[in-house]
Amino acid sequence: MTLPPAEEIRLQLRSWPEVEAYLERCRGVIMPLGSTEQHGPTGAIGTDALTAEAVALEVGRRTGVLVTPAQSFGMAEHHLGFPGTVSLQPSTLLAVLHDVVLSLARHGFERIYVINGHGGNIATARAAFAEAYGSAAARGLPGASRLRCQLANWFMAGPVMQEARSLYGEREGHHATPSEIALTLHLEPSLQAKQRPLDDPAPSGPIHGPEDFRRRHPDGRMGSHPHLAQAEHGERFLDLAADALAADLERFLADDPDR
Amino acid sequence: MTLPPAEEIRLQLRSWPEVEAYLERCRGVIMPLGSTEQHGPTGAIGTDALTAEAVALEVGRRTGVLVTPAQSFGMAEHHLGFPGTVSLQPSTLLAVLHDVVLSLARHGFERIYVINGHGGNIATARAAFAEAYGSAAARGLPGASRLRCQLANWFMAGPVMQEARSLYGEREGHHATPSEIALTLHLEPSLQAKQRPLDDPAPSGPIHGPEDFRRRHPDGRMGSHPHLAQAEHGERFLDLAADALAADLERFLADDPDR
Amino acid sequence: MTLPPAEEIRLQLRSWPEVEAYLERCRGVIMPLGSTEQHGPTGAIGTDALTAEAVALEVGRRTGVLVTPAQSFGMAEHHLGFPGTVSLQPSTLLAVLHDVVLSLARHGFERIYVINGHGGNIATARAAFAEAYGSAAARGLPGASRLRCQLANWFMAGPVMQEARSLYGEREGHHATPSEIALTLHLEPSLQAKQRPLDDPAPSGPIHGPEDFRRRHPDGRMGSHPHLAQAEHGERFLDLAADALAADLERFLADDPDR
Amino acid sequence: MTLPPAEEIRLQLRSWPEVEAYLERCRGVIMPLGSTEQHGPTGAIGTDALTAEAVALEVGRRTGVLVTPAQSFGMAEHHLGFPGTVSLQPSTLLAVLHDVVLSLARHGFERIYVINGHGGNIATARAAFAEAYGSAAARGLPGASRLRCQLANWFMAGPVMQEARSLYGEREGHHATPSEIALTLHLEPSLQAKQRPLDDPAPSGPIHGPEDFRRRHPDGRMGSHPHLAQAEHGERFLDLAADALAADLERFLADDPDR
Amino acid sequence: MTLPPAEEIRLQLRSWPEVEAYLERCRGVIMPLGSTEQHGPTGAIGTDALTAEAVALEVGRRTGVLVTPAQSFGMAEHHLGFPGTVSLQPSTLLAVLHDVVLSLARHGFERIYVINGHGGNIATARAAFAEAYGSAAARGLPGASRLRCQLANWFMAGPVMQEARSLYGEREGHHATPSEIALTLHLEPSLQAKQRPLDDPAPSGPIHGPEDFRRRHPDGRMGSHPHLAQAEHGERFLDLAADALAADLERFLADDPDR
Amino acid sequence: MTLPPAEEIRLQLRSWPEVEAYLERCRGVIMPLGSTEQHGPTGAIGTDALTAEAVALEVGRRTGVLVTPAQSFGMAEHHLGFPGTVSLQPSTLLAVLHDVVLSLARHGFERIYVINGHGGNIATARAAFAEAYGSAAARGLPGASRLRCQLANWFMAGPVMQEARSLYGEREGHHATPSEIALTLHLEPSLQAKQRPLDDPAPSGPIHGPEDFRRRHPDGRMGSHPHLAQAEHGERFLDLAADALAADLERFLADDPDR
Repeated sequence: MTLPPAEEIRLQLRSWPEVEAYLERCRGVIMPLGSTEQHGPTGAIGTDALTAEAVALEVGRRTGVLVTPAQSFGMAEHHLGFPGTVSLQPSTLLAVLHDVVLSLARHGFERIYVINGHGGNIATARAAFAEAYGSAAARGLPGASRLRCQLANWFMAGPVMQEARSLYGEREGHHATPSEIALTLHLEPSLQAKQRPLDDPAPSGPIHGPEDFRRRHPDGRMGSHPHLAQAEHGERFLDLAADALAADLERFLADDPDR
Repeated sequence: MTLPPAEEIRLQLRSWPEVEAYLERCRGVIMPLGSTEQHGPTGAIGTDALTAEAVALEVGRRTGVLVTPAQSFGMAEHHLGFPGTVSLQPSTLLAVLHDVVLSLARHGFERIYVINGHGGNIATARAAFAEAYGSAAARGLPGASRLRCQLANWFMAGPVMQEARSLYGEREGHHATPSEIALTLHLEPSLQAKQRPLDDPAPSGPIHGPEDFRRRHPDGRMGSHPHLAQAEHGERFLDLAADALAADLERFLADDPDR
Repeated sequence: MTLPPAEEIRLQLRSWPEVEAYLERCRGVIMPLGSTEQHGPTGAIGTDALTAEAVALEVGRRTGVLVTPAQSFGMAEHHLGFPGTVSLQPSTLLAVLHDVVLSLARHGFERIYVINGHGGNIATARAAFAEAYGSAAARGLPGASRLRCQLANWFMAGPVMQEARSLYGEREGHHATPSEIALTLHLEPSLQAKQRPLDDPAPSGPIHGPEDFRRRHPDGRMGSHPHLAQAEHGERFLDLAADALAADLERFLADDPDR
Repeated sequence: MTLPPAEEIRLQLRSWPEVEAYLERCRGVIMPLGSTEQHGPTGAIGTDALTAEAVALEVGRRTGVLVTPAQSFGMAEHHLGFPGTVSLQPSTLLAVLHDVVLSLARHGFERIYVINGHGGNIATARAAFAEAYGSAAARGLPGASRLRCQLANWFMAGPVMQEARSLYGEREGHHATPSEIALTLHLEPSLQAKQRPLDDPAPSGPIHGPEDFRRRHPDGRMGSHPHLAQAEHGERFLDLAADALAADLERFLADDPDR
Repeated sequence: MTLPPAEEIRLQLRSWPEVEAYLERCRGVIMPLGSTEQHGPTGAIGTDALTAEAVALEVGRRTGVLVTPAQSFGMAEHHLGFPGTVSLQPSTLLAVLHDVVLSLARHGFERIYVINGHGGNIATARAAFAEAYGSAAARGLPGASRLRCQLANWFMAGPVMQEARSLYGEREGHHATPSEIALTLHLEPSLQAKQRPLDDPAPSGPIHGPEDFRRRHPDGRMGSHPHLAQAEHGERFLDLAADALAADLERFLADDPDR
Repeated sequence: MTLPPAEEIRLQLRSWPEVEAYLERCRGVIMPLGSTEQHGPTGAIGTDALTAEAVALEVGRRTGVLVTPAQSFGMAEHHLGFPGTVSLQPSTLLAVLHDVVLSLARHGFERIYVINGHGGNIATARAAFAEAYGSAAARGLPGASRLRCQLANWFMAGPVMQEARSLYGEREGHHATPSEIALTLHLEPSLQAKQRPLDDPAPSGPIHGPEDFRRRHPDGRMGSHPHLAQAEHGERFLDLAADALAADLERFLADDPDR
């Protein structure tokens, strides 16, 4: 099967009558959620947004589900000790996700599938969903009781984690990992120029405030060896993530407790 | 070893000069976080707060670390379809935890250990910690860069989950579980009178809004058989949880990247 | 008449079907509201929450009205100069009370009776009630126009204040008072060990910020002589407060402008 | 003694260098706080703001303390059932007062004296002061630890209440009272045309939401007989209030725990 | 035609039954919005509120449309470097305007016409209107879909700007302008005493934070020569502004896309 | 001169050490701000974000100034009547921009240049800047007094408006304009397929709530004839906008009142 081009499922490239027609046949939508934060001495600051958007578009192509533009600023407070990091406070990101979900729900979208590229967003996204359900009901939106949001962290999909373990073992680490760096190398070849061997990283550990983070992880890495990353690995990760999440999304769309 | 009575480690029973003296030798504090929400047709609405507080006090006795009063109202938006549930919106709970952490940090506490009894609180608590680190720095608190918060969900401690699996297998389920109900039976014997056999529960599944939750789980249970719970199991769970979390807390207190 | 045990009216020990049945016959509920703050060099930090909860349970026993768990963290900004004080900012406490009232109103509770142990909560609680009425209407809750909240400060009940005056005269003071300390001695006998004669306290006066408070009241007391407190006084205060508030609650429940 | 004209103490009529010079000799400032809400079938909607501002200007003339413009919109949620009422939610009024206090504190004002004309503002104003002290410290304002706010409700000043009792006895009531209406008649003679005998009012009682308020008090009055008001009474009330509050303000300015 | 006295159109001087009757024939209302901020070394701190209120009352007299009291505190963060300035943060002013609009909309007002005297309020006022439309719909107000707000900056009305150019040319400048100062001289003759020749002002330029503002404009003026102002100019500006805005308001009231 | 590729100035493709080095020579940064909203029956929902980002990258290439990822969700409340529109409430967008500016300021960025593609964002962005200046000072950021933000609306740049007038005259209109559509055709050729002749649009007019907007502008256009757009026009608009804004940005970077 040939997949349709990404243009067809990008919400940004649709007109409103096209969205109106789409809603007649599908109530689902994908939202990519990233972050803009340091990824070690050689990784791209946009890693989490670039990867989330790429996976989202591939999932959209596989499923025909619309993809909103990416929210590229996420919750990265703990990375603020490194220049270039841009972070929304948790309460701000909560409000953003709340408003996006409410906007979509108003039009009749009932399955909001957030494809996330950053672990730091997980908690806030879940909190936002809970707040959004309450607001949808409080505002009397017709589909409030059918509204559902789901968070899908591409880097935690089973096949992705297996492949990363197979390729890198313990050297995958937990931040600025070779798997996510590999995906950025596939997406943005110019990043290859930054790749170089690095000393052993500081080990992974608990995450607290930005000063604590930088003290524990002076170059930004958490137990990872991003030099192992290769663009072709990235292509493979993209494929694995997209397949896994597309299947997950199909289940999400099909699930209906009323039937 | 005989453990000291709970009175000695309850912040509520201390005077301020005693806390001042305590801070000379220990910078840690335990905060129990619960919820007030339906726990199936036979479970107590206070289950998550009662259990979190009980575990916290036992951890305090084992470690000598002070225990604040419990925050008994948590984030239970998805349970609001059942009478008696009281929920703080995520943004409200975030503010509560933020303010509690900031109050404690102002006095010099540097390790805030939150013992949690409710899965629905996890996301918001983590978001609150990130927000608190930022505020502590913004306010110029002297210990801002050393402030750390950690979330400990007693029901997810390894030995607790193993014991639950051993006792109940798949019938443990995910809400109104026999393990947490057992602990409440141990703590509040009057609850025994509510115990009775129940039909098979609705299976566990994703959690969205309150109407969706009640539609999927008409009696409030998620795959659980709370009738299996026995008070003596509860005593055992309390012991296992307290031991596991006490060890975890000791590691948390000892961890110092500067040393 | 023998009063029922407190177990019967604690919301935490009820199941949701029991609350559902309760709402068929009564639309009232009691919420204890305390604080966690310094109470002078010999008083317990938990005084205001311990006393509010104790009074609430006694009022519940006398009236059969359900009692929620206590909100033990209150608005104690002015006490933050003393270690161990935990304070919610006024805007945070406002949100907490708002959410609790809205949760209860959603289930059909129409008379929320807040038994308060801390003067610093009064303003914020009243503000929260006003905000909650507006939200209940904005959300279209069926009982919005019948929803009413009432604040009952146990330490300001007529019989309590008369007894305090009779026992202590001017030495009652305004913070860390012998009357409230007496009640804690009754509730928690271990606190007796802290009792000791103290120098004359700083006089009562206006309350502003934490530094100003500590400058004016270096040991935390405001004109009070807590050494006068005795456990048996406390038992008497509990009885007087519970009787007075129970009668007040009955009037609150019976009041209906439509009839 | 001849009092200076009001022009001299109105902040609005000062230039910034004049304020700079003023701060060299006085750290106090008066802020009038009113409300815009129904005052019964014959009373002016602006009663609470008009009276608060008039009293504030007289206090300013007596003391030489600057008077800010009035905040004429207050917390009047319970009056929203009557056309013309404009209300700020408690959380909004809290933010307004917070920001006004912080602005003034930034310039070096250390004694903020809020002259209030509306009972519904009291709780929120007190909450705002507590929040402002915290922010002043968090922002590191030089005078944060010396900042103090005080609320003065002119209608509750001792001499005012005595005079009202002497003139009207029980017919003073609690909203749209003859005393406040009298003051408006003195200030705005055109209001005399609205005066007319009215039926007996609904009695005073607890205040909850707007629907409840209108059901209990169908014409907006709470136990009051505003027809008794006369302009000359109002002149007298203004004088009594201004004298009493001027003395109170002098004490407030003189109070300094450091000296 | 003789205009009615201002008393007749001041909301503050109306009773609620009069407002109820008014709404039968007119759904419009005027709200004056000012600021309390430095206006150069000789200008009055209340300039923007005094002028906005004066223009609003004249527009009300010309059109018979009710005028609310002025919101005299506006968004003046950039002027906080000068003593006497009082500023609401943008998020606070947004909440104030939101709440005022929602209060009025609740009673059936459908055309809210905000007459503004301060450029710094423009952005926040527009943002507030957008937020208010959403809330009116979310709360299910009957007239939500017909609610409209409009901002009218009197100093930017065509005839006003032409007259200012004709009188002052480039010396009008952009803050503490002779045109606005002239209006205050007309309204408050005592201000004449402050008038005196000044050195050439710092030129107009972009506006950022308060320190930057004061660095660029050390005496608070932006390219203006307020000494040129004369009271009779002010009378003329008032007339021109009132005529222009009255016509604009009439169009606003008449505009109805449904007809 | 050959311009560098966009890769070199995209913050997302930089590592944190590269940003650290960049800050040694330049304190400026560009942030593209768009919206996700209906653009008439034939225009792309992503128009405002796609165009803002494209212009920003071209300005970055011309100036060597870093470009953050785009904030693609903006304030589009008035377009919510059309499916596919996603809007942040003004208060949410204010928080987003506030947090982005504060993050950047923390690292030492002092000139934040926001390139905006949507008129509806203007008010909120300006409000956010004012709020951010205050927070930067309140948090004690070292560069707080030098922090400056500037908003650049590419579609209002002089040369762009002249070209649009020259090409389309009055048919440019005010929403879903041929100039912005032309730019999207240049950027995304697949959009050409949607182009088709349309009936005359509803005229431009004031903007209020979403229902009012849709009633006035049933197909989403405001006086515009997007069918006139051609991809080659778009290329020209991009060039004109980039040149104009690059020059503006250079002035912004060079402006320093201290020198």
